[in-house]
This record gives sequence, C-alpha cells and structure tokens, in this order.
Amino acid sequence: MSKINKVVLAYSGGLDTSAIIPWLKENYDCEVVAFVADVGQGEDELEGIEEKALASGASQCFIADLKDEMVSDYIYPSLKTGAVYEGKYLLGTSMARPIIAKAQVECALEVGADALCHGCTGKGNDQVRFESAFAALAPQLKVIAPWREWDLRSREALLDYLAERNIATTASLEKIYSRDANAWHISTEGGVLEDTWNTPNEHCWVWTVDPEQAPDESETVNVTVEKGEVVAVNGEAMTPYQALIYLNEKGARHGVGRIDIVENRLVGMKSRGCYETPGGTIMMEALRAVEQLVLDKDSYEFREELGLKASHLIYDGRWFTPLCQSILSAADSLAQSVSGEVVVKLYKGQATVTQKRSLNSLYSEEFATFGEDEVYDQSHAGGFIRLYSLSSRIRAMNTQKQK
Amino acid sequence: MSKINKVVLAYSGGLDTSAIIPWLKENYDCEVVAFVADVGQGEDELEGIEEKALASGASQCFIADLKDEMVSDYIYPSLKTGAVYEGKYLLGTSMARPIIAKAQVECALEVGADALCHGCTGKGNDQVRFESAFAALAPQLKVIAPWREWDLRSREALLDYLAERNIATTASLEKIYSRDANAWHISTEGGVLEDTWNTPNEHCWVWTVDPEQAPDESETVNVTVEKGEVVAVNGEAMTPYQALIYLNEKGARHGVGRIDIVENRLVGMKSRGCYETPGGTIMMEALRAVEQLVLDKDSYEFREELGLKASHLIYDGRWFTPLCQSILSAADSLAQSVSGEVVVKLYKGQATVTQKRSLNSLYSEEFATFGEDEVYDQSHAGGFIRLYSLSSRIRAMNTQKQK
Amino acid sequence: MSKINKVVLAYSGGLDTSAIIPWLKENYDCEVVAFVADVGQGEDELEGIEEKALASGASQCFIADLKDEMVSDYIYPSLKTGAVYEGKYLLGTSMARPIIAKAQVECALEVGADALCHGCTGKGNDQVRFESAFAALAPQLKVIAPWREWDLRSREALLDYLAERNIATTASLEKIYSRDANAWHISTEGGVLEDTWNTPNEHCWVWTVDPEQAPDESETVNVTVEKGEVVAVNGEAMTPYQALIYLNEKGARHGVGRIDIVENRLVGMKSRGCYETPGGTIMMEALRAVEQLVLDKDSYEFREELGLKASHLIYDGRWFTPLCQSILSAADSLAQSVSGEVVVKLYKGQATVTQKRSLNSLYSEEFATFGEDEVYDQSHAGGFIRLYSLSSRIRAMNTQKQK
Amino acid sequence: MSKINKVVLAYSGGLDTSAIIPWLKENYDCEVVAFVADVGQGEDELEGIEEKALASGASQCFIADLKDEMVSDYIYPSLKTGAVYEGKYLLGTSMARPIIAKAQVECALEVGADALCHGCTGKGNDQVRFESAFAALAPQLKVIAPWREWDLRSREALLDYLAERNIATTASLEKIYSRDANAWHISTEGGVLEDTWNTPNEHCWVWTVDPEQAPDESETVNVTVEKGEVVAVNGEAMTPYQALIYLNEKGARHGVGRIDIVENRLVGMKSRGCYETPGGTIMMEALRAVEQLVLDKDSYEFREELGLKASHLIYDGRWFTPLCQSILSAADSLAQSVSGEVVVKLYKGQATVTQKRSLNSLYSEEFATFGEDEVYDQSHAGGFIRLYSLSSRIRAMNTQKQK
Repeated sequence: MSKINKVVLAYSGGLDTSAIIPWLKENYDCEVVAFVADVGQGEDELEGIEEKALASGASQCFIADLKDEMVSDYIYPSLKTGAVYEGKYLLGTSMARPIIAKAQVECALEVGADALCHGCTGKGNDQVRFESAFAALAPQLKVIAPWREWDLRSREALLDYLAERNIATTASLEKIYSRDANAWHISTEGGVLEDTWNTPNEHCWVWTVDPEQAPDESETVNVTVEKGEVVAVNGEAMTPYQALIYLNEKGARHGVGRIDIVENRLVGMKSRGCYETPGGTIMMEALRAVEQLVLDKDSYEFREELGLKASHLIYDGRWFTPLCQSILSAADSLAQSVSGEVVVKLYKGQATVTQKRSLNSLYSEEFATFGEDEVYDQSHAGGFIRLYSLSSRIRAMNTQKQK
Repeated sequence: MSKINKVVLAYSGGLDTSAIIPWLKENYDCEVVAFVADVGQGEDELEGIEEKALASGASQCFIADLKDEMVSDYIYPSLKTGAVYEGKYLLGTSMARPIIAKAQVECALEVGADALCHGCTGKGNDQVRFESAFAALAPQLKVIAPWREWDLRSREALLDYLAERNIATTASLEKIYSRDANAWHISTEGGVLEDTWNTPNEHCWVWTVDPEQAPDESETVNVTVEKGEVVAVNGEAMTPYQALIYLNEKGARHGVGRIDIVENRLVGMKSRGCYETPGGTIMMEALRAVEQLVLDKDSYEFREELGLKASHLIYDGRWFTPLCQSILSAADSLAQSVSGEVVVKLYKGQATVTQKRSLNSLYSEEFATFGEDEVYDQSHAGGFIRLYSLSSRIRAMNTQKQK
Repeated sequence: MSKINKVVLAYSGGLDTSAIIPWLKENYDCEVVAFVADVGQGEDELEGIEEKALASGASQCFIADLKDEMVSDYIYPSLKTGAVYEGKYLLGTSMARPIIAKAQVECALEVGADALCHGCTGKGNDQVRFESAFAALAPQLKVIAPWREWDLRSREALLDYLAERNIATTASLEKIYSRDANAWHISTEGGVLEDTWNTPNEHCWVWTVDPEQAPDESETVNVTVEKGEVVAVNGEAMTPYQALIYLNEKGARHGVGRIDIVENRLVGMKSRGCYETPGGTIMMEALRAVEQLVLDKDSYEFREELGLKASHLIYDGRWFTPLCQSILSAADSLAQSVSGEVVVKLYKGQATVTQKRSLNSLYSEEFATFGEDEVYDQSHAGGFIRLYSLSSRIRAMNTQKQK
Repeated sequence: MSKINKVVLAYSGGLDTSAIIPWLKENYDCEVVAFVADVGQGEDELEGIEEKALASGASQCFIADLKDEMVSDYIYPSLKTGAVYEGKYLLGTSMARPIIAKAQVECALEVGADALCHGCTGKGNDQVRFESAFAALAPQLKVIAPWREWDLRSREALLDYLAERNIATTASLEKIYSRDANAWHISTEGGVLEDTWNTPNEHCWVWTVDPEQAPDESETVNVTVEKGEVVAVNGEAMTPYQALIYLNEKGARHGVGRIDIVENRLVGMKSRGCYETPGGTIMMEALRAVEQLVLDKDSYEFREELGLKASHLIYDGRWFTPLCQSILSAADSLAQSVSGEVVVKLYKGQATVTQKRSLNSLYSEEFATFGEDEVYDQSHAGGFIRLYSLSSRIRAMNTQKQK
C-alpha cells in the first residue's frame, strides 16, 4: 500500500470520529482534514465542532452546509419514485449518505488529499454507501475504514484511547442508543430495541411526541404540489428545505411519522430501528394523494414498481449509478402531471388526507356516477369484458372439449 | 341469440336485483332462480330474503353460506401476497366476487340453467369480475347484465317498475350512498364523496368508530401466525373466519382500518370510496411484521412485487386464471417460514405492531450489534464492498481515462 | 350522434380503403379526405395513389413522407429499450401505427375535419393502436371504423361494392396472404399459416432470401453505435433511415431476420404471422452487443425489464401515454453510455456479432484474468461471499437449531 | 480457527485440484477425501480419476453419478422459467454447481468431515455458487478456498509444486483456454477471447461444428413436450438426460447452440466466453414454441419476468434459497398447460421451429380470421377500445380544457 499523505475524514464530532483523528495520524503518519456535513442534524451537534476537530489533531476543519441541496437534489427526486424500504422505512439515513460522500470527495480533491476516511462500523449499511459513492466519484483515492481495522471494540476503549492522548471529550461511558439525524429523520437503534419482543420505550423516540400524549384536537395542513414536489404549505411558498422543517414541526407535535421496523441490512443481517420522519410522512401522503388523482392505472402501478426498485437502490448506496439515474428519470417523467392541492389532517400519530384536487385530475364526478355522459356509454362495457376475458373463455372451452 | 329457459341471478335482496327478476321474466320469457351468497354482509341483508325473492317472482331461492370458504380460500391466500391495490385498498369487494361467481355457476349447473345474471352497473368493476369468472368457469352459459340493457336509469324508475307490478319493496327513494359489505370490509361511495375536495362525513363510515371518538385507552391484541396465516388471537385458536370477526370487533372499536381513496377502476375511469377493513388491517400488519423477521432482503422485495401484481389481478377479476394461480403459488411458497407471534396495539385509528418474534427469525441480537461473533467478521465487509462497487469503480476509472 | 361533415381516412390504396371512401360518403353523407402515410412500404404501393383516391371519390389526397421521422423518433427510441414482443417480434407494425395516427390527426386538424377513419378489421390490434392514439391526440374527433359497422364480409363483397359504383380497382379476387410493410419490416398472415402445424412456404416470405438459398459466403458489416443509436455502417455516417435501408439490403441477401410466431393479440386471441426484419435484426444484435460491454449487471437487468414492458406498451398501442414516455426516458438515460463498434457476420439466416469494442467498456482483460491487478484482490471475494450468503447461513443455523 | 481433521474436496482430476490435495494436507494437517461429480463432463475426464486422486494423496475418492438428477431436478425446472442470462447464456455452468455442492455436502456428512474445499479461483462466479450452497446446506462446515489463500499464481507454479512432491500429472504447461463441461454445455474462456475485438477462432468451439462446415441439408427433429418438459424426441419416449444427449448430438452436427458473450460476473467484473449448448438450444426453442400456443398474454409476460429473475438467481448461485424455490413454484404452476408437439429444423447453426400444435392451444383458426364466429363479435372491439383508451381520452380532454 502506497503512503498516504493527507486524508479527509467525514467528521461528526462524536466519540468515534474524535478517536479516528489521532488514530489515523499514528497509524498512517498523515495529515487529517476534518470534513463536517451539515445535513440538518441539529445545532447541538455542530456547535464548537471546528474547535473539537482541531483539538483532536485535525489540521483543518471544513463545514459544508448541505441542507438545501440535500432536500432539493436528493430527497425530492427520491420522493417522486415513492421509495419506501420494506414497506415502512422512508430512507432517512440512506438519502443523506450520497450527498455527504460527494461533498467529502470534493473537499478531498480541493485540499489535494489522497485518501478518504469514515467512521462507520463494519456491520452496517453506511460503510457500503460511503465507499460505493467514493468508488463512483473518486476511484483513485484510498479509503480507510478504521472500524474494520483497529482493535478498539468498546466505548470504554475509545475513551481510554483519547484519555491517553489527553484529548478532551464530552462523550460519556454510557450510551445506550445509537442515533442518526438529518433534516428528514432521526433513527434510534440499540438498547431495548435489540430484542424484537420488547416494546419501544420513551427513549426510543426523540423528535415526535407520543401519539397518546399528542393534542386531543386535530390540525390540518394544506400542501401544494407541483410536478411531484411540495412547493407551498398552508398557502405559503417554501423552498424544499423550508417546507420540510415546517412540516417536521407540525408532524412532531402530533406524533406523526414513527415507525418501528426490523429491516434487512445490505450486509446480510437484520437490524431493528425506530425511525421518526414527521414532515416526510406528511409529504409522502400528500404526493401519493395527488398521484391518485392524476396517474392512470398502469402509470400508478409503474410508479409503485419504481418506488420498490428505488427503495433498494437508495438503501443500498447505489445513488451514483446509471441504474439509479435511469429510475429517477422515469419517475421524474411520470411526475410531470403530479400537481395539485391536498389537505392533510394530523391527529394522534396519523397523517390522513381528507381533501384533494388537481387540474390534471382524471377523476370526474360526471363519468364515475350512474348518469349518462358523453364519454362513457355503458354498453361499451359488454364488448370490453368480452375481449378482456376472451383467453379465459377459449381456455375453458378447450378444457371442456378435452373432457 | 338462442332462447333462454332458466337463468340464475346473483340476488342481493336490494332494489336493483328485485327489479331484475320481473324484468328477466318479461324480457327473456324465462324462469328465474335467485342465488344468494352469504359472504358475511350481515344478518339484516339476509333476513327474509328467500320470501322476498319468491315474492318478486323467482321460482326458487338458494342461499349459500360462503363465509368460511371466502376467508380460508380467497382472503388468506391473497394476504400471503401482501396485495394492496394502489397503496391503500385491501381489496374487500374484489376478493368476494370470484367466490360468489363460482358458487353461482355451481348453482346454475345444478339447476340446469342456461344463463347467468348479475345486477352490477355498466360503469363498475364488478361486472368485469363476475363475467370474467363466468367465462373461465362456464363459457357455455349466456350472461345477462340488465344494467347494460334496460333503460331504467334511476331509483325512481326502479321503484315505479316494481310498483306497476305490485311487487312490494322496502327500498326508499332516497339512497345517497352506495355500499358493499362482506366479512372483510364495507365500502361506501357516492354522496359527498363525489367531489374529491370534500372531506368524508359521518355517513361515509359505517363499521368503525371515528378515531377522534375512539377510546382514550389503547388496547393490544396478540396475533399468532403460522405459514402466513393467522391461526390464533390472544392465545386462542380460531378459524380464519372467526379470527376475522374477532379482529373486526376489536379494530372497529378503535377506529382502525379506514381509508379514503381515489382509485383507478378497471374500466378506465377513477372513482372515490371510503373503505373500512378493521380486522383485515390488523391481520395485514401482523403478517408483515412476521415477514420482517423471517424473509431475507431479496425475498422481501419479491413478496412486495407479488403483492403489487396480485393486487391488480385480484382487483381486475383475474382470480380464475393461470397467472393468478401462479402468483398465489409463489406467495404460498415464500409463506412457509412466515410463522411467529405479534402484539398489535390499537389506538385512535391505528394498528401498530409493538412486539414480534419468530422461531424462524433471521434477526439475531448477537449478529446485529457491535460485538464479535462467530458468523460475521467485520473485515469481511471490506471485500464485500470492494466487489459490490467494482463496476462503479471501473466505470469511473474509464471516465477519468477518457478525459 | 352529431352529423359528420368531413372525415380524414388513413388511405392505403388497397381494396378495403378504396371501398371505404364511397361507403363513408353514402353512409355519413360527408366529404372524405384521403391521407396516405409513406412509412417506407414501397414505391409500388404509393404509385398513382393520389389518382386512385380521387377516383374513388376522395375530395383531396395528402401524402406525408414519414420515413425519416418514423425511424428517428419512434424506432430508435424503442430500440434503446430492447423491446421484443413475446421473445421474438420486433414490433414492426406496432411502431408504425402511432406516427401514422399522429400525422393523420394533424391532417384532420389542418383541413378542419370532424372525424377520423381507418380500415383496420375488428379482430386485430391496429384498430386499438389507431384509436388509442386518436383518443390521446384529438379526443374531440369522431372515429369511424367501417369494418366494425358495415356488413361487407369478403373480398368478393368489396369488389362487387366497387363495381356497382364503377370504381376501378386493380385488386384481384384471390388474395391469400395479408401483408403489412414499412421501412422496418414486412408481415405476412393467413393462407397456410392459419394452421400452426403447417410449415411456412415460399409465399410467406417476401423480402428475405431463404437461408438455404442464401450465399455460401458469409459477409460482415461494421456497425457504429452512439448513445444507443446506429450512426454509421461500414464506417460511413448514415441517418437512421439510411442505415436501416442499407442494413435491410444486406440482411435480406443473407436471409436474416425471419420469424414465424404465434402471438397474443391485444384483443384476447392469438394469431400467427411470418415477419421479416432484416436490417432491424442486425441493429438489435449490434446494440445488445455494445450493451454487453458497457452496462453493469443491475443496469443490464433493468434494461431487459424495460424492454419487456416497452414491448407490451408499443404492441398495445400505448405510445402516447405518460407511462410509455416514462419508460422511454429511463431507457434513454441508460443508453447514454451505449457507444461502440460492432462487427456482425451475416450467414444463412443468422446475424452473429463476432467483434465488439467500446471506450466505455467495463470489460477489462486485466481484471478478468488470473493475474494480479490493482483493482481486484482475490481475497476480497472471501468477505463478499460471506456477506452475500449470510442470510442463507443464518437460516440454515436456525433450522438446525430447531431440529 | 479450530483444527480441521477431514476435508472433502470437489475434485476434477485437473491440475488445480490435484495440487490442492497435497496443499491441504500440508497446510491444514488433515485427511483429504476427493469427491468427483459426474455431471456428464465426459468419459475422458473421469477415466482413472480415482487412481489419480489417491496418487495425489487423497485418503478416499467418491464418484457420484449426478447426470440424471441434474437434468431432471435442476435443468428441467429451470427451463420452465425460461431463464437465459443477459439475453444469451443458457446457464450451463451455473445449473451444475448447486447439485455438485449438494452431493459434496452429503459426502462430507457421511464421512464425518469438518470442512469442504473447492478449486474455484477468486475472480469467478463458481466460488460464490459453491460457498452459497455450502452456507445453505451445512453452515457448520468450514470452507477452504485455496485459490484465495495460497501464493501459487500460475500453471508453472502448480506443476513445480506437484513435481517437488513427486506427484505425476498429465497436465501440460501450456493451456490457453479454460473450459467447463457438463451434459448441458461446454464453455471456453481465455486465449484470443480476452480481447473483445477478436473473433473467436476454431479453438474456441469444442462440441459443435462450425455452421459454415455444417451439412448443406437441413434436418428436423420432432419434440414432444408435457407440462413444460421434453418427454419424447422423434416419437420416442426418453428420460430428460437421454433427450438431452440425443439432442446434443443432433444440434452439434448442425452447429446449433453457439454463443459468444461478454457477461457480467457476480463479482463485479465482466468476462467473455464462448458457450455451446446444442441440445439445450433445441429444447428451449421447443418449449417457447409450445408456450406461444398455450399461454395468454399476461401469463406469457409473467413467464418472461420469471425467466429474467431466475436467470440472475441461478447465475448468482442462489438455488437453495426460498426466493429461488418460490420462483420455480410459480413457473411450474404456469407450465401445467405447456404440452404439445414441435418440429424443429436444424440448419447451419440455427434451430428453427417450423410446426407446432397443442391440445391446450389458445390459437384458433376460426377466431383469428375474418369470418364470423360464435366467440368473437367484431362489434365488441368498439367498446373494448373505448374503455381501454378512456384514461387517455380524459387526460387529453383535460389538457385541452386547460389551454
């Protein structure tokens, strides 16, 4: 392995990546640049992060504000496909990884680094997502994954490692739950969740109120959709990121967007997590409701297929592949007519669409009801059915003949 | 068209099929046999139905109890596929049609009839479902669809028609909503629902309590699943039909299983309906939860594809086709490991799985967490990722070379 | 039905559409405009066609040269999907229908017609393709399908009909085979083909030489592909139409591109046809060969799925639908890297790719062979396999535990 | 790693596995049992193989005749799906791996071995296929893959290794092409094929005659199919294996079944191979031809989807998974009506179906042609088309209204 001179680390300020900085310097004898992606994980996590990075031994610390780009260029295109992983998961962590990796690569190219490093463990999906993006964007850069290399195996070991080097940390020995947050969602794993027969407790949920504690009064939000994208809420135009933040606040208040799932990780095992996606859940409901109005039967089915395929591609870290781009193209094409207005009612954990309309609506009161109309003559149905079931008829006649 | 001597009519006791009996006799000069399918639509609808049929002019009236068979042989196999039409609809009306049509055909063959008749309108799906089943099961029998033939165009016209013939009816002039019920669900269409911008009102829901009026205390049910089928609830073994009825009662109490959908009808137009499937919703959640534990990634994805395909086949009245049977086989094969136990919490309109376990679970606390184990060595992941992203790497290297 | 003043007829110059002109005038009391689409069906069929139309009673005759547009805007986009219907049929007739219908609609709008007419029979696919396009492009225009209306039921009847009106025709009483041709293909149906147990005879093939009579010497052509489109042949840049014509000539000489198929028509029955697509077959082989070099595993599979879906959409006359456009977008996206050069050998009915190369090729001699290389370390495979088969391992361990 | 006492090696008698025997003994200090699978690779390869194994140091050598079982239980079920990998490859090597691995595992359990070993290289698919099967069938057994462990890197090194140990071998230093054969196919890789711009030469083909040298007279074979399986040829009942051998001979004589493909390996790279599957190609053509007669449109499409999915599962070594079994069930269900008789003409590299018939045929001369019939009334088509294109019509009317 050739010598590494400068490595750009995806730095979060947490215990793991804090320990990685000195570990890289000692084991690779290289300069370490900390790269922090602001994807909306919260002020708390970003406060003082540059100082922390430098104190841990980084030569530089870059903070990239990716919040708007993430929602506009990664989340919104994904929503058009309707991607939901294994029937439940709105892909919060998955959608953030490609944009972080891309910005990290750009940082590396700018500072002339020859390697990339991340703090993902060796049993999770994120290592695959980061490294797949690295392979697609900068195959010439080396990749270092300390969790697959070092022999530090516990929080205690990491704390000792930092203490020995006099690097201060606010991390505590006890950390029961593992979490990941961005503007779209927060995930919680570990602790009581490790036994699937345990009910999630209050610590498993962070952003959203318990539905049983949510307001007794429901609330509605009015969502305006244009070409498959939420462009206004309650009549006010908003950027994608603004709309998400606004709906997060509304949804969280009513306990909307909680899921508790056992999912198949890409690396062959299953894991359990509690995910909260309050605003995203409202957006999804709104988009699907407009689709109900404007997509014909075959188009709706294809959109569902695209969503299924996209859910795996996104989950599996395949964003920067021709296949993923092809599927996003297809979904974007279908979304051209997905414009309309939806009212979503929030109540005790649920987001329910109660009203919907669209200029492109294929629903027509006139055609759907019993009366006569210009477009649909009931007698047409007889011919339709006859041809529609013709092969069944011929098959049955054949069978009778053979008896 | 050859002369018809005897026709078997799918008789519901409602206004439409009551008028059809004399209409058939007058227009086809034939004997009319009424066939009533008991699919759990409710005692009210069945009470005195034989007298009614005979009073309307039927020569005979047969009532077939199809409730157990419907749940066991039509609904349970469908549930294994996970079929949900256009993301929402649990296919309540669709799943009942094939079994009714099949029993009606059997009745016709037994009484030596030469024609079949149904009371479905010319704009709906049910005409297609009935006649597709007829074509597959008895292509030699003629099919009469009065709604596509006669010029009676309103309730008033039908009432007048019966009055002129001195046939008593309890039907009223005003009937705003059109409903269909069986053990699995009840649907409501028409009235305020005809404008998609209207919120459903209290008349749009029949079985389930309004979530806002549901008990403030949640309740849990324990569901036992074996090979993809619910076999016990709260520890008590139940037949499929019993389990459904039991869960219907539980779900309805908590406002579970309401949907309000604009869907694509098979005949090319859209319609809107409010559907209630309280017990079915709980069953679905339970089955999917066990699947989360036992199906691997690719199997889960295929099960979702099967559900998507099956949803269209069942909705479209394709039950008695080789394709539908092939898909049911595939789903049944996958369901062999879908056994386990699930706790579902019912609260204010929601059915949420809080606990789940299975002897076939592929989830393992040992493998999923950070510690060492025999089965998964974190260093394996490095090789996995490298090969997994190899084509991306080669593509990127190519692109760089070409620059 | 409101009165029709002027109708535009898709006119071929054959017996059927010649009879339709006077029939329309007599039965609808309207002006008839003949519209002729030149899609490469051949000089013979176009010679003197205007005179013929006018002699039959048309008020005007328009001839539109659609050859280039058909190949560039309909065939080439379809080829990127790889669409082949039921494993064999290269969709020759299907791809021509949308462009003819579109041009016919444009003609109708220009001349201020209020109706459209075609000469397709009531048992075929083409009526559906024409009328589906009409519905999508000009729903306000009436559609007349004489074959579903009149009671002329044989060639003899049509000839008599014309004779009675003193309209000259060169059509003969005996016409065993029914054919359809355009630049892409020629189809033959009827005659001996009506029994699937009959071998096609010499009359079933028109353009291509019998492979057994083809030259004993093979010939090669060099095909250059750019972004999924054939742009040059034997080193010479060509328009899509030119390339097709050139390859037709080459392929026909060697008996390339014959298929004999029993296919499922859209209208529920099966039919048998012999189709010849000499140039198209060569193009298909060339495109697929470049794809072998440049598409990764998942992309290749998706391209095959797109082809399967597109084959049905195109066959079924769904060209002007959002779904078809979405699928074409997806295929076009994938085709961006499909550039390269291919040598195709033509011999006795076969077109076989013998050489292929591409700057975007993901094939690398260095990686594929046994030696060491930078990109692929054999030890990576161990980790890959371990994770790849992890769920199988866990399942098997579970099963053993349960014994 | 715990100590290994006895290992069962998949032994071929070739240079690699001959070297593996002493290497295992030296490096693992264990007893080595040679396991030879007879899958129809040819007498030459099996002659004296037991002596060879013992001479190389094996303690025992078992030879299992798997020929009948492979064709009956692996190939025939696969054929029902129509699986063809990346449009060309009939999966010859892929289908043989699971049965070999299964028999090897059974041998290991019988002799009380604690490990399994194979001679596949670290860059190919076969290592994944073997080890995936091992994981599914005997997860408790260790797996040794010498090519990923040792530092022998060339034929020369292997020959030296054997010479140093006085183990005789007939292997020569020069071996340009790498081949794999079984009853279904023979594959050739390496040599001139490593440059995709090279035309395959005479050494790239082993079983089949060059089409240009094939007989000038064509020959036909009559294939009888029952429920998706070839049961007789030329009127003579044959077992699956017999039928394959018989058709191999016929096909090879006429140069049938050659393909030259660049394919995506499972391990992320591409490779090129020349594959010969003479009998298999004839079987495939015959099965597809019967399907043309008996499968309706939707069933045919689903069969194609199953084939696409199965091609990847089989290629990827996923035979012993619930997903693969589910797909095989679905295909077997569809195949129940695939019975009939087909005549295939063999000529200069091509296998062309010229005649076909089936009692289950949905094709009917009566329905397909112009005349009147009982089953299909042309006027039905008008209603069919109207509903079929209804959503297009509504969409277009909407668009016009918005202008």
